[in-house]
Amino acid sequence: MVLENPLTARPRVLAVPVVPPTSRVRGVDVGALRMDAEGFWGRRQAVNAAATLTHCREWMERLGWLTNFDRVARGEALDERTGWVFSDSEVYKLLEAMAWELGRQPDDALEVAFSTLVDRVARAQDADGYLGTAFGHTGQAPRYSDLSMGHELYNMGHLLQAAVARARAGHPDDELVQVARRAADHICREFGEGARDGVCGHAEIEVALAEAGRAFGERRYLEQARIFLARRGRGTLPVPPLQSAEYFQDDVPVREATVLRGHAVRALYLSAGGVDVAVDTEDSALLSALERQWENTVARRTYLTGGMGSRHQDEGFGDDWELPADRAYCETCAGVASIMFAWRLFLHSGDVRYPDLIERTLFNVVATSPSADGRAFFYANPLHQREAGAPAADGVNTRAEGGVRAPWFEVSCCPTNVARTLSSLAAYTVALDDDGLLLLQYAAGEVRAGGWRVRVQTRYPDGDRVLIGVDEAPADAARLRLRVPAWAEGATVAIGDAPARPAAPGWFDVTDVSAGSVVTLTLPRQPRLVFPDPRIDGVRGTVAVERGPLVLCLESVDLPAEVSLEDVRLLPGAPEAAGDGALAAAVIVDPPGSAGPLPYGARADAETATRSTSVPLVPYHRWAERGPSRMRVFVPLARRAGQDD
Amino acid sequence: MVLENPLTARPRVLAVPVVPPTSRVRGVDVGALRMDAEGFWGRRQAVNAAATLTHCREWMERLGWLTNFDRVARGEALDERTGWVFSDSEVYKLLEAMAWELGRQPDDALEVAFSTLVDRVARAQDADGYLGTAFGHTGQAPRYSDLSMGHELYNMGHLLQAAVARARAGHPDDELVQVARRAADHICREFGEGARDGVCGHAEIEVALAEAGRAFGERRYLEQARIFLARRGRGTLPVPPLQSAEYFQDDVPVREATVLRGHAVRALYLSAGGVDVAVDTEDSALLSALERQWENTVARRTYLTGGMGSRHQDEGFGDDWELPADRAYCETCAGVASIMFAWRLFLHSGDVRYPDLIERTLFNVVATSPSADGRAFFYANPLHQREAGAPAADGVNTRAEGGVRAPWFEVSCCPTNVARTLSSLAAYTVALDDDGLLLLQYAAGEVRAGGWRVRVQTRYPDGDRVLIGVDEAPADAARLRLRVPAWAEGATVAIGDAPARPAAPGWFDVTDVSAGSVVTLTLPRQPRLVFPDPRIDGVRGTVAVERGPLVLCLESVDLPAEVSLEDVRLLPGAPEAAGDGALAAAVIVDPPGSAGPLPYGARADAETATRSTSVPLVPYHRWAERGPSRMRVFVPLARRAGQDD
Repeated sequence: MVLENPLTARPRVLAVPVVPPTSRVRGVDVGALRMDAEGFWGRRQAVNAAATLTHCREWMERLGWLTNFDRVARGEALDERTGWVFSDSEVYKLLEAMAWELGRQPDDALEVAFSTLVDRVARAQDADGYLGTAFGHTGQAPRYSDLSMGHELYNMGHLLQAAVARARAGHPDDELVQVARRAADHICREFGEGARDGVCGHAEIEVALAEAGRAFGERRYLEQARIFLARRGRGTLPVPPLQSAEYFQDDVPVREATVLRGHAVRALYLSAGGVDVAVDTEDSALLSALERQWENTVARRTYLTGGMGSRHQDEGFGDDWELPADRAYCETCAGVASIMFAWRLFLHSGDVRYPDLIERTLFNVVATSPSADGRAFFYANPLHQREAGAPAADGVNTRAEGGVRAPWFEVSCCPTNVARTLSSLAAYTVALDDDGLLLLQYAAGEVRAGGWRVRVQTRYPDGDRVLIGVDEAPADAARLRLRVPAWAEGATVAIGDAPARPAAPGWFDVTDVSAGSVVTLTLPRQPRLVFPDPRIDGVRGTVAVERGPLVLCLESVDLPAEVSLEDVRLLPGAPEAAGDGALAAAVIVDPPGSAGPLPYGARADAETATRSTSVPLVPYHRWAERGPSRMRVFVPLARRAGQDD
Repeated sequence: MVLENPLTARPRVLAVPVVPPTSRVRGVDVGALRMDAEGFWGRRQAVNAAATLTHCREWMERLGWLTNFDRVARGEALDERTGWVFSDSEVYKLLEAMAWELGRQPDDALEVAFSTLVDRVARAQDADGYLGTAFGHTGQAPRYSDLSMGHELYNMGHLLQAAVARARAGHPDDELVQVARRAADHICREFGEGARDGVCGHAEIEVALAEAGRAFGERRYLEQARIFLARRGRGTLPVPPLQSAEYFQDDVPVREATVLRGHAVRALYLSAGGVDVAVDTEDSALLSALERQWENTVARRTYLTGGMGSRHQDEGFGDDWELPADRAYCETCAGVASIMFAWRLFLHSGDVRYPDLIERTLFNVVATSPSADGRAFFYANPLHQREAGAPAADGVNTRAEGGVRAPWFEVSCCPTNVARTLSSLAAYTVALDDDGLLLLQYAAGEVRAGGWRVRVQTRYPDGDRVLIGVDEAPADAARLRLRVPAWAEGATVAIGDAPARPAAPGWFDVTDVSAGSVVTLTLPRQPRLVFPDPRIDGVRGTVAVERGPLVLCLESVDLPAEVSLEDVRLLPGAPEAAGDGALAAAVIVDPPGSAGPLPYGARADAETATRSTSVPLVPYHRWAERGPSRMRVFVPLARRAGQDD
């Protein structure tokens, strides 16, 4: 196996999140697309930079998660350490977000904040490269004494990812990179072949080592990732009380599994690392296994929003078809991790299904989590909220649920995961291959990559049209490839002033593009009824409405006071468009079912229409923005007259 | 408030589980109904006595839960104690089951086993009355240092309940009673008004102290129960990480709550204690609050089986209408606790709704848990099993789920709860009031209570007829009251050779009964379709089938090999009866929905009939008796031709 060092093999350093040595498609620099500040994603990127990064840093300071590093550096006793054992990882994910942000555009104040944080982290590193504030110091349990739940390698994995971002963003000799390399060297010594025969209960080190191997040109790191992958799934981890091996994906080896299961974020991080290892070691069997798992997971264990993980218990995947709307966990981090997994499969294959799912997940999970001001977040993203949450206080939310965005959580993995995704988002929006440029997601802004300079003008997802103006194009790879989303029936592409041509879902290639070319992609945004597979019991007899890439929902704040969310029924037929991006949906208001002592009766309750009314549907990602509310994505269908079952 | 001592006020000691000082209805001795060994419940009682009691004792011995008491007695260091902090309670629940069993009929070997166990427990009691093996001894955390999760008062509550059983079963001066009284005295000193201002995270001590107050004639115990009740619901307990006050019912005072919420067993034990305190202190406001909570909980948060608690997370109640079949937790202990709550409300009110729910819960939760041999148990009782479990090994099941009955669990509360319920079952089957005898549940056997001697002959629930032959009846209270179950449309009662008269659901009174009277109750058992309230999203568009008091289910082992459980649809119309207690249900076999990448599509999948077949339905309580299988109670209805929604 030969692993080419991309740093030497490629012409210059690019701030690219994922860089396999070989791939059908290549990612671009996080600065390759300058998004317009008023666009859907440009606005979020700006808020992330202006508010979220500082918000996260302040919360970690307030709670002592940063002080943990200082205390280790000072040699203090840490038996009464603050925060969960994985709190270090939040610092590293914040550093990664900052590193991408600095790769996107220089910012002196952010640079200072970054370096200051890195200094505090670096001072806590042990002489042998170990870095962690929860184990191995005065008053603490020994290092690696709880591989199942200790998160030590998970934490260091996020450290490596932050360092990879920093290195790729033009700082290959940064202090953070040196710290990370010492940590990675330590891990290889401690967990290499013949050394400690363990894995980490929370996958993450695998994807991190593989990428660190690429970024730092160290084959040993990739090899260590391969070892961790191969060890897992054989009952390697001790199973804590009331837990199962499945939770850790330690029940079945990665290359033998057919579907994702157990803790969703663990499963998805592991899969992302699996793709990296499979690609870099040319292990086609492993890659096929992961493609199969992605397909089965998307086909049977994924929500309309792209959300993954239906169980609150274990924050885990459910069985096939176990996709209840109300108890959908759909952790924000699982959405981020799903994008990581799909992106890697996309780079390898160029298959349009992956950016299709990424779009769904970006608009309906990632965009749903942060509040408009970037200072509060959803952790769980259910598709049905039965009881309105209490207003969020400016404090730590002990639970990951509740129907309101909260400033911070006891387990606060989601805010920093959103932050690092938004700061690197451009890199998932466009891509390059040997023949030209690919537009994967539609965000207004200017693309500069691979000899291309392209202006994208669009109000997407609030407008139908994407106007692509080419200012520069390379002579030798002048094909512009547009993704026509799977949902876009009736899409058209017009080149210059020529009549628009139909564009079927999938790829639409415009060849021989040159400076001055103008391409207009039109994606009709008429509302669509979406029916669940009949095997999904939790939403049988209901329908959802989508518009463009957005899943819509019905919020109680939009209902007349006398109408209860449970009593709304959608009449068959397409909903009509209304103003302000909302939809008017005809509804029937039913009297509540006549209750016996129990909510089950000898006859189905009559669903006779008593009156019709009209309610707006709003984009799911905006739900609960107007205060706590009740909400549902899947609305029961009205039964027709004469239907008495 | 005057609390009469029932030991002196009543003519003689009876082995009655719940004895309020005043009540509309009075319970009978656990030996008052000698059940026929071949009857539905008689068989289970016999297996419980012959197998389960020993099974539980052996498991606790094997795991060291009994040795914990010996080690405390010997003054050993117990920092590495075996079992969860609540393992003591299993010993006490077993003692309670043994005490009722010995009250039912003498058994020398069981008497020896009981006394031996009591000796071991007694030797572990501290000089001041404290009893517990998990706190306060060498190497352990101090007593009451973790009221939220330490379960110390919970454990001692079960000790008191065991002692109450022993006292009522003819041994008021037993060693166990003395031990319990010392423990109760200790609790009153430690937690009385002006002393430690705390409650136990797991309710149980309240119902135990109230009953101990009655059984031992100590008003102080009742008063302490009242204090615990009043303290709860005001954020009294520290909330552990990731937990909520609701979990402990510490969010709202009992008298202000409108519905049960949080951990189901905690909520139901607390409610049972609440009724005891309300009745004994004549607190009608508290009683009304509990009646309202029962009604709302049954109407909106209870399964067709009588099971309660829909969430795996927190083993808790869900929101209103959150009753998914597949993730129904329905812990066996919650079924037992629901019976405790309903029974107390019944004794007070004489309302037929309570024994109706008790019947539902007995046949479909309590009878479902134990295997036929009484040596394996369900902990969770879902109404839909999507994936067949792995065969249960003869070991400790780490998880409370999995679709197979397991010999024992890491948290093994259910086996002993089933045991104590079965050994005292007769007392919930018949009752007395000032006017005569009440037959609440129909089990074959002979009743001797209150001057009555009555033979009940029936194959119920496998036969339609209950033949009641009166051998003796008191002259002054000669009314026989029969419960006609809420489900029994078309029931009749025939007195002697007179023509049968219609008997509407509710009470049917036969007056002026005397020796030689013969009454025939006929309860038609034609299968019934049962439709869920349309607000229960998890089972929309489905129907369940009941027969008599039994909920039926469809098991994968009964399907033709080529038919998948997901593809079965019930045709409208009543199912036909078939042999062997099973039902033939017409089904349609559909092709699986055409899958896009995600399980949601632009059109509802066609539900065209491809062929009809016939499958038997079996009683839910028997499911998985033929090995691991997939199962569902609620079967989707076939859509009619022309329905294209």
